Amino acid sequence: MSDAHAARRERLREYCSASGADAALITRAANVRYLTGCPPLGAALLLTRERAVLAVPEDAEPAEGGEGGEGRLDAEVTRLPVPAEADAASAAAEAAARLGVRDLAVEEHDLTVARHRTVARAVGPARLLDLDRAVERLRVVKDEYEIADLRIAAEIADQALGELLESILVGRTERHLAMELERRMIDHGADRAAFPVSVGTGSHSGLEHHQPTDRRVEEGDFLTVALGARYRGYGISTARTFVIGAAPAAWQVELHRLVFHAQRAGREALGPGVEQHVPDDAARSILQAAGHAERSVHALGHGIGLEIREAPRLGPADMGKLDNRVPVTVGPGVHLPGRGGVRIEDTLVVRPPEEGGPELLTITTKELLAL
Amino acid sequence: MSDAHAARRERLREYCSASGADAALITRAANVRYLTGCPPLGAALLLTRERAVLAVPEDAEPAEGGEGGEGRLDAEVTRLPVPAEADAASAAAEAAARLGVRDLAVEEHDLTVARHRTVARAVGPARLLDLDRAVERLRVVKDEYEIADLRIAAEIADQALGELLESILVGRTERHLAMELERRMIDHGADRAAFPVSVGTGSHSGLEHHQPTDRRVEEGDFLTVALGARYRGYGISTARTFVIGAAPAAWQVELHRLVFHAQRAGREALGPGVEQHVPDDAARSILQAAGHAERSVHALGHGIGLEIREAPRLGPADMGKLDNRVPVTVGPGVHLPGRGGVRIEDTLVVRPPEEGGPELLTITTKELLAL
Repeated sequence: MSDAHAARRERLREYCSASGADAALITRAANVRYLTGCPPLGAALLLTRERAVLAVPEDAEPAEGGEGGEGRLDAEVTRLPVPAEADAASAAAEAAARLGVRDLAVEEHDLTVARHRTVARAVGPARLLDLDRAVERLRVVKDEYEIADLRIAAEIADQALGELLESILVGRTERHLAMELERRMIDHGADRAAFPVSVGTGSHSGLEHHQPTDRRVEEGDFLTVALGARYRGYGISTARTFVIGAAPAAWQVELHRLVFHAQRAGREALGPGVEQHVPDDAARSILQAAGHAERSVHALGHGIGLEIREAPRLGPADMGKLDNRVPVTVGPGVHLPGRGGVRIEDTLVVRPPEEGGPELLTITTKELLAL
Repeated sequence: MSDAHAARRERLREYCSASGADAALITRAANVRYLTGCPPLGAALLLTRERAVLAVPEDAEPAEGGEGGEGRLDAEVTRLPVPAEADAASAAAEAAARLGVRDLAVEEHDLTVARHRTVARAVGPARLLDLDRAVERLRVVKDEYEIADLRIAAEIADQALGELLESILVGRTERHLAMELERRMIDHGADRAAFPVSVGTGSHSGLEHHQPTDRRVEEGDFLTVALGARYRGYGISTARTFVIGAAPAAWQVELHRLVFHAQRAGREALGPGVEQHVPDDAARSILQAAGHAERSVHALGHGIGLEIREAPRLGPADMGKLDNRVPVTVGPGVHLPGRGGVRIEDTLVVRPPEEGGPELLTITTKELLAL
């Protein structure tokens, strides 16, 4: 792994040189982790042409799923302890000043105005540039180490969901089912849930970001479950909708089939070189043809990795092209107010047709199970 | 409640007038909530002399423990819907431009440099000033509505802890105990845990911010539990240390007594007009006299409310004075590497002696129970 981190830093150095900066100050937690493997919260990384200095507050809490903490930093990275409650970014900026840095690129989308001012003071005569989202752009295409972690995260979520489906659901509350899923994911080795587990039953089914309530599962309900595990920092996201009881109603069968088809069309449209809006178009046109256009304002999906929502976005107006080895979510949904609805979401890795096309990570069945 | 929110906004308006701004743009989530009662994440509040405009993204997730969402906004607050994925701060800044605002104070400790730039563009010719932490300063002294919510949050944590103490602990993992405490708090009505529950047993006991592991509770262990509930946005924090088995060792009795005394000294030093470092001095001198100075580098405590760590800090170098009706934590600890340790923390509200002195919110016994 440490070779991978060093290679990532090398790519960032190339970017900095090309953009006229002789050093970069990385403060965004996911980016620090990506470049060093080191997860303590509040750490800041100074990357000069020859050095990598990681400023870590003494009372830093390690992020979940650390790969072993400071012991595992590769040889190139020097650890700079920072007094508790001091700002690691300023400490790293002072180190930059000592090392004679002249043009320091900082993450203006992460530093607050107040913190930027403190960094400017600490770095002395050096000029501050904007690194912008350079590290986020590097993170879009994943290496096989990252994809291996994503596969495990998906397996954990699938296991937790599979176990839940074997248990009695009628009479239990959304809140309890959500907590049980979270506990099962942790039991199976997750750092934690990648986002708050969402369980929606009856009229709550099919809603995105539904917060579990005390509503109990009843016969005849649609039940939508959205969950994701985080493993060694990498998260995935998946959603399924089932029906409770022996015989789904005709409208439930029909709505589920519709969303199933839309989701499949979205998945099948994924591929290297495909414009980002194409999978959304494919899914949306199916929903629109059935008269559900107005219910699906969100993008079909988005990139996923160290952050649960990262580049690229798969929305109707997104014009860039997908690359090979980019993990994305594909998750359309339809909600009928007062009645409920269906959401089906997978995490997949974009792969070329000669490698078998998109790699499905979340393999729990998408059929309309009657539970 | 809506009167309370309106009164808070009035105080902020007075501050703005005095500092030369004719409007304020509030982006920090806890501050938006404090001034409106409205919890959706990503919302931004524009407060002019006559108007209060709350920009809310259409896909905003409500924060936990909402007081009813938009229906409960008081009459003065206008809701401005913002397209999903747009920035509420920029939308509010555009509204400021339309209303003829000339000097707009923004929260420079919250806005990133990139977002500040977007806001500056959106507000047109108006000048951007720094509101600094004005709302955080207003939030320090709590009103009785807020203290009532804090009391309930403390009661919830006490109930969850009390139930755990009645169950069998030996053989269970830190991770499972932590999840059970979280579940119990939610069962008792918490929005959620105010922070990740920490359970440390054996050599992990007494550590601050310990992340629960798969270590199992054994006979003779110290067991430290740190937990807090959040109720309607307001959080509290408490920690207790117990011993497992019938007969604590002499060193355990002694160490527990020491931390107990230090914590009591800290609590008893609280009062309106007392300098912030005084409770820390009181607790620290007891630990130092026993030779444990080097193990307690952290501040003794801090303010608590809509954020789990807010002003005022109770550290050795903090010179300000405590006010009446300020909730704070008091939580010293000693950890002996390889052996374990003790942490005892309460949340209390500063009250004058004529009202009976500090009001203890977290009432679970601090004795060395043998479980």
